[in-house]
Amino acid sequence: MRKGNTIFFKTQPRVSSFAAVCGSKEREGIIGGYADVTLQDDMYGESTYEKAECKMLSAAIQISVAKGGFTESDIGLMVSGDLLNQIISASFSARQFRFPFLGVYSACSTMSESMLVAAMSVDSGFAKAAVAATGSHFASAERQYRYPLELGCTRPPQSQWTVTGAGSCVISDKGNIKITNATIGKVCDWGVTDVNNMGAAMAPAACSTLLQHFKDTQTLPQDYDIIVTGDLGALGSRILKDLMWEKGYDISANHVDCGEIIYKVIEDEFQGGSGAGCSAVVMNSYIFTKMAAGLYKRVLFAATGALLSTVSSGQGESIPCISHAVELEGV
Amino acid sequence: MRKGNTIFFKTQPRVSSFAAVCGSKEREGIIGGYADVTLQDDMYGESTYEKAECKMLSAAIQISVAKGGFTESDIGLMVSGDLLNQIISASFSARQFRFPFLGVYSACSTMSESMLVAAMSVDSGFAKAAVAATGSHFASAERQYRYPLELGCTRPPQSQWTVTGAGSCVISDKGNIKITNATIGKVCDWGVTDVNNMGAAMAPAACSTLLQHFKDTQTLPQDYDIIVTGDLGALGSRILKDLMWEKGYDISANHVDCGEIIYKVIEDEFQGGSGAGCSAVVMNSYIFTKMAAGLYKRVLFAATGALLSTVSSGQGESIPCISHAVELEGV
Repeated sequence: MRKGNTIFFKTQPRVSSFAAVCGSKEREGIIGGYADVTLQDDMYGESTYEKAECKMLSAAIQISVAKGGFTESDIGLMVSGDLLNQIISASFSARQFRFPFLGVYSACSTMSESMLVAAMSVDSGFAKAAVAATGSHFASAERQYRYPLELGCTRPPQSQWTVTGAGSCVISDKGNIKITNATIGKVCDWGVTDVNNMGAAMAPAACSTLLQHFKDTQTLPQDYDIIVTGDLGALGSRILKDLMWEKGYDISANHVDCGEIIYKVIEDEFQGGSGAGCSAVVMNSYIFTKMAAGLYKRVLFAATGALLSTVSSGQGESIPCISHAVELEGV
Repeated sequence: MRKGNTIFFKTQPRVSSFAAVCGSKEREGIIGGYADVTLQDDMYGESTYEKAECKMLSAAIQISVAKGGFTESDIGLMVSGDLLNQIISASFSARQFRFPFLGVYSACSTMSESMLVAAMSVDSGFAKAAVAATGSHFASAERQYRYPLELGCTRPPQSQWTVTGAGSCVISDKGNIKITNATIGKVCDWGVTDVNNMGAAMAPAACSTLLQHFKDTQTLPQDYDIIVTGDLGALGSRILKDLMWEKGYDISANHVDCGEIIYKVIEDEFQGGSGAGCSAVVMNSYIFTKMAAGLYKRVLFAATGALLSTVSSGQGESIPCISHAVELEGV
């Protein structure tokens, strides 16, 4: 069923199992005690950053499948994407598992888009169990989007730190976290051109999707135990709260942003974490663990993505952004 | 309903309208008389190739929406992706239309993946009407994947020519072309590392999906008026026919490949066309026009995609490929 831009799942598919792999820096923060694997060395035994990123994603998928008691033949669909050009981490992971595979791209909101498509498939009977997964790696993202690490460029204060990590969940009909509905985002572009200020660029997209979601589901912010945005960071989160306040919604009491909370000390990474792996690891470790334990009953997860490329920015374009929201409820 | 890797649509959503935009070189070939817009100048009045590619995609979408008698508010979902890094053509088109947007990436099989996801959404009641669209541009693909055009590099004989064009269709409950089922592909990699020989790399993926499809649907090649693959080109098509023959299926009588048929003279472009736009323009002009007129009754469309990037090839990886198939039937 559809209302506005929100799709309501009649069977309410479940998050059956979940897993997260994170880097050494991420281990120091809030998810350190919740991740399934934390790396000693961010190369993860591989010869390149890109291969390490792919290996993290594959590991997260494999662990989530195993934790749910699924065999590889139970998985009818894998929905995944990542930040690398042509989503090679996802495609090369899919090569390894040989699951039927749908590649998606939604920048840092890939986790919620993957969950949305996977839940849609399970709800409609197109797959009994579907994997939704994504990840990112600080070093591969830096060299693709910014500068070679070896240059040692100074980071501006509004910048965020791409998370090294991957998260995966299996969606099927079993488990105690149900997916009740999802709001499909529209692309928003408020003209921000500063590629170091993703939080400011993405906040309007998060605002647009949250407003749409509250309207479609006839809920209010206080109906949720927690409203989790993807990776707006500290600055972007403040902007989102302001934007929501202007529209008559106060989310200050129960909003958290994965980018803002993932690192222990807001120092080197300035506004916090970002990257497709950011909300993927926070959701698939900390949040889902708390939900499975009954500590959070109703969660709204709205990951955010900046849909730029180095070429679009180089050609003078501003940054289009999107946010897809998934509503989760403890059974 | 699901059987094997094939999903069967209970409501059998329809291709309600379709449109294609193609470049000046493509106009000379089979689709010239069927495309809605053919460009005089492949820059399409824009300052860069990438902006021209995006404009073609937007034009195809707009025309397909208008031809079906839809207004922009009727469109509940846009599913799109393209070959450019971070699928900027799709994202920037989505910015223009403000449709709820799911970004996908499946290289040159993006048209069939988009149709599959859009059909899934319509069939499940998650969207009343959904756009599936993709495109590519010779010049933007060359400079991203290969060499600057200005270098004038010699093309090897096994190479294909990236199609300049975009195609879009609207899927809803009205129209005389129904989508009965779709087979979700698995990633296949037979170890081909020659980035100029995409046909050889992709043929095994097409073979795998066709075999799976025939098994799941209990059909044979002769049950279809035409079996359309994406962009294997002349060499890849011969490989596919051989592979199918070895497995006991003779597709030689009714197989056509969009890459093989799109250009008039197989000369400069060697093995034919490729790119996400290749099958997108052929399907959304020539094939759908013939289906709508009742000339083809049952069509199997299996686009193929090579999931490599310049980084993966540079790091010594072989080329993983995928093919998603969509079965279409005249009403």
